Amino acid sequence: MNPNAKLDQDPRSTREESLDPQDWNEMRRLGHRMLDDAMDYLEHVRERPVWKPVPEGTKRGLRAPLPVEGQDAGTVYEEFRRDVFPHTMGNIHPRFWGWVIGTGTPFGVLADLMASTMNPNMGGGDQGPNYVELQVLSWLKEMLGYPAEASGLLVSGGSMANLVGMAVARNAKAEGDLAQEGLKAAPRQMVLYASAETHNSVHKAASLLGLGRGALREIPVDRAFQIDVEALRRAIAEDRNAGRHPFCVVGNAGTVNTGAIDPLPELADLCKAEDLWFHVDGAFGALATVAPDLKPLVRGMERADSLAFDLHKWMYIPYEVGCALVRWPEKHRATFVAPADYLAHLTRGLPAGPIWFSEYGVQLSRGFRALKVWMSLKEHGAAKYGRLVAQNCEQTKYLVSLVEQEPDLEMMAPAPLNVTCFRFAPRGLDDARADAINEEILYGLQESGTAVPSSTMLRGRFSLRVCIVNHRTRREDLDLLVREVLQRGRAAVTAVSELARGA
Amino acid sequence: MNPNAKLDQDPRSTREESLDPQDWNEMRRLGHRMLDDAMDYLEHVRERPVWKPVPEGTKRGLRAPLPVEGQDAGTVYEEFRRDVFPHTMGNIHPRFWGWVIGTGTPFGVLADLMASTMNPNMGGGDQGPNYVELQVLSWLKEMLGYPAEASGLLVSGGSMANLVGMAVARNAKAEGDLAQEGLKAAPRQMVLYASAETHNSVHKAASLLGLGRGALREIPVDRAFQIDVEALRRAIAEDRNAGRHPFCVVGNAGTVNTGAIDPLPELADLCKAEDLWFHVDGAFGALATVAPDLKPLVRGMERADSLAFDLHKWMYIPYEVGCALVRWPEKHRATFVAPADYLAHLTRGLPAGPIWFSEYGVQLSRGFRALKVWMSLKEHGAAKYGRLVAQNCEQTKYLVSLVEQEPDLEMMAPAPLNVTCFRFAPRGLDDARADAINEEILYGLQESGTAVPSSTMLRGRFSLRVCIVNHRTRREDLDLLVREVLQRGRAAVTAVSELARGA
Repeated sequence: MNPNAKLDQDPRSTREESLDPQDWNEMRRLGHRMLDDAMDYLEHVRERPVWKPVPEGTKRGLRAPLPVEGQDAGTVYEEFRRDVFPHTMGNIHPRFWGWVIGTGTPFGVLADLMASTMNPNMGGGDQGPNYVELQVLSWLKEMLGYPAEASGLLVSGGSMANLVGMAVARNAKAEGDLAQEGLKAAPRQMVLYASAETHNSVHKAASLLGLGRGALREIPVDRAFQIDVEALRRAIAEDRNAGRHPFCVVGNAGTVNTGAIDPLPELADLCKAEDLWFHVDGAFGALATVAPDLKPLVRGMERADSLAFDLHKWMYIPYEVGCALVRWPEKHRATFVAPADYLAHLTRGLPAGPIWFSEYGVQLSRGFRALKVWMSLKEHGAAKYGRLVAQNCEQTKYLVSLVEQEPDLEMMAPAPLNVTCFRFAPRGLDDARADAINEEILYGLQESGTAVPSSTMLRGRFSLRVCIVNHRTRREDLDLLVREVLQRGRAAVTAVSELARGA
Repeated sequence: MNPNAKLDQDPRSTREESLDPQDWNEMRRLGHRMLDDAMDYLEHVRERPVWKPVPEGTKRGLRAPLPVEGQDAGTVYEEFRRDVFPHTMGNIHPRFWGWVIGTGTPFGVLADLMASTMNPNMGGGDQGPNYVELQVLSWLKEMLGYPAEASGLLVSGGSMANLVGMAVARNAKAEGDLAQEGLKAAPRQMVLYASAETHNSVHKAASLLGLGRGALREIPVDRAFQIDVEALRRAIAEDRNAGRHPFCVVGNAGTVNTGAIDPLPELADLCKAEDLWFHVDGAFGALATVAPDLKPLVRGMERADSLAFDLHKWMYIPYEVGCALVRWPEKHRATFVAPADYLAHLTRGLPAGPIWFSEYGVQLSRGFRALKVWMSLKEHGAAKYGRLVAQNCEQTKYLVSLVEQEPDLEMMAPAPLNVTCFRFAPRGLDDARADAINEEILYGLQESGTAVPSSTMLRGRFSLRVCIVNHRTRREDLDLLVREVLQRGRAAVTAVSELARGA
């Protein structure tokens, strides 16, 4: 007999309340309704506008006073359905190409449902979910050609993965016990290097780690937006001569602006010769290695001392999941471990797990983000991820060909991977006016719900930016984009001319 | 007519593949099946063992080679159901009281389903989810009695919230431009203070921020495990006399070991007088303020310059969600902002949102963790959270009364909140043997699936530790715990005696 059966009938139980539903069947019916809505939402995403401004009424509704008393879950869901569900960012749509924002998948969503149901804390312990994360880490190392002996950690995303890698770099290369004594006690100022095209999370990490943004030397790039290795060599030599302590180079496998890939083998050689830590920010570009034809582009990445990349970008897994890999497990752990009596590693029971992930990163409480990776990799297999990554790069080539065929459009940078920077620039339009018109084109595309590219400044000029980490995009979506850009651009030129004539 | 309808029939589409299912109805049926399993799992959790060791066969199964080809989603789910689903940590069970690990709720799980479906990136932009997070932050400030003008950020948990608060403290109190110049350039060594009972995430943050763990002065505690304010004053004076730069005091609203609450009003006064940043780690204890009878215990918390707390602990929301609040929004933003061309704040379109959350913390990519908080607060209302928090404290009082009634049990520390530290200690058992026997009791409770307390060392002695942040716990669960501890303890004493007689 189940020893709990009697307890459940104990009349004293009625004195205590819980957050479980009064009526489980009702909650279950609501859940099925939500699941149907979720599947409808995903199945028919192509039929909706990519994005729409959030209506003022909705914004006002989301400035309500604190709910003191509760209400029926079904009623709460209706409010969500009316006020929140329709007003998403749009990144699950086939024509969303802004920043570097992933798409998600239906089975990934269902994996999140089960992860939240189990609701483990993945700090450590002998529990199924921890073995799943270990499994996922070993798969990712294999997929990316990184050494199997490396340590790893699933994190919230690339920014955190960069922070982890750079923290280990700082501590491992410090002259003294930096974890204990801090940077003030360091004999020389520690400095690190990255190209001027490096992601701002690297600047944030330099600041947070107490090195200061000034300690990050921004090395110029060449015409392909790749780091100038000779300039890097000179900068290192100058710092050494000035009595500073160069300790790390951050290489890019896919810059955010243009998808440029730094010459990673050269950087690896240089770091070895100069005794510097080699960190690679491969937020999305690292995944290129999964596509056989693209693999040579990111060669050298596997030689990094630490590697940061995202799975919610070019692996299309729902948010949030990124990964930090470190070639030197003991250096990795030494950076983050902080013993505590309440976390003693006992020899048996739940605490006697295979690993305490909390000793490899910032988080002690950690959710089961590994599950969606595990289920997605099993569903699709690594080969399909390779094909999808290659497909996004082929689509980019296709977009580049469309741009190059159009005299009124101009490429703004090479497009080695999946990022296309271009703009509407018919002959005779000066740069300032082109900036304004392209900004107007961007707003028009977004506000009409047609497509969401983003923008950037390249060599001082405003550029439209199309980054495809989207498994739903098709070539006809790019045809539509180009038609719309031309039409909106020409309309803007006409409007400006008429305005000028009228004035 | 929907302009996409024609596109969808374009024969070229067939050349491109996606990660969407071939058959949406099949995926939907699988989803409904998973939802039913999830609801069964939650509804019947009380009938299962709390925890069981992960079988060797399961561990072996989770060391498979990288899947190169995909398989049917249903098959993947069956594997999950067999190998992962049964082997959870157990923290959703009514008799899980280890560490400080929350429980989750069914509607919180369904909220995660919808968050993953929408899959927005909450770095910024004009999108519904960002307004939801702003709404949730204003509710949390109201609930906790923190100033409405404060800035805030939902984060992965308390460790990250402490890191955020301490980073702002460091930069705001620095003598010079620390974000740019780093700690090496600081004129004096920066030091901070916290009690010896402070959570290890504070030590980790001191290390990560480049201050060094040594910069964190561990101030002794009194018999109630509260910081000794006189010792703190002396330490500050000594550091000032030695030419160092005291900049911050971290106060505890609920220590992890015993739930002790530092004298927060005294600390607030002292910080004001000494011009120090006052950071409060209220990981779980901050929530005590929601229960009217407990509110006085954490008075003074609302005067903190920054406040860290978790929602996946004592608000029973599924993992991961914590919160960092900062009284000084501009200092908060200045610590984390890092402008970038690709993140330009345009005046219209998607980027023209109400806030860029990425400028207030480490993450640029951020998931929609706000949704489960929004839906849960509306479902239950703040008053019910107050009742549940109070209920857990009353259950703790009840457990203390059981322990105190039993001559063979000993309280190891005061229990001001929801943490009970006690052990089996019949007269005549020396400390070393009591340590061993209580460790054995802990293993037995866990391995039998009866209950999961955790352990800690208090003044050098091994203690069982029961922390109730569990809305499913009932008093009879605590009755059962005490019976089992006594039974297992006595059996262990008998076994030891027999062994001694036999020897």
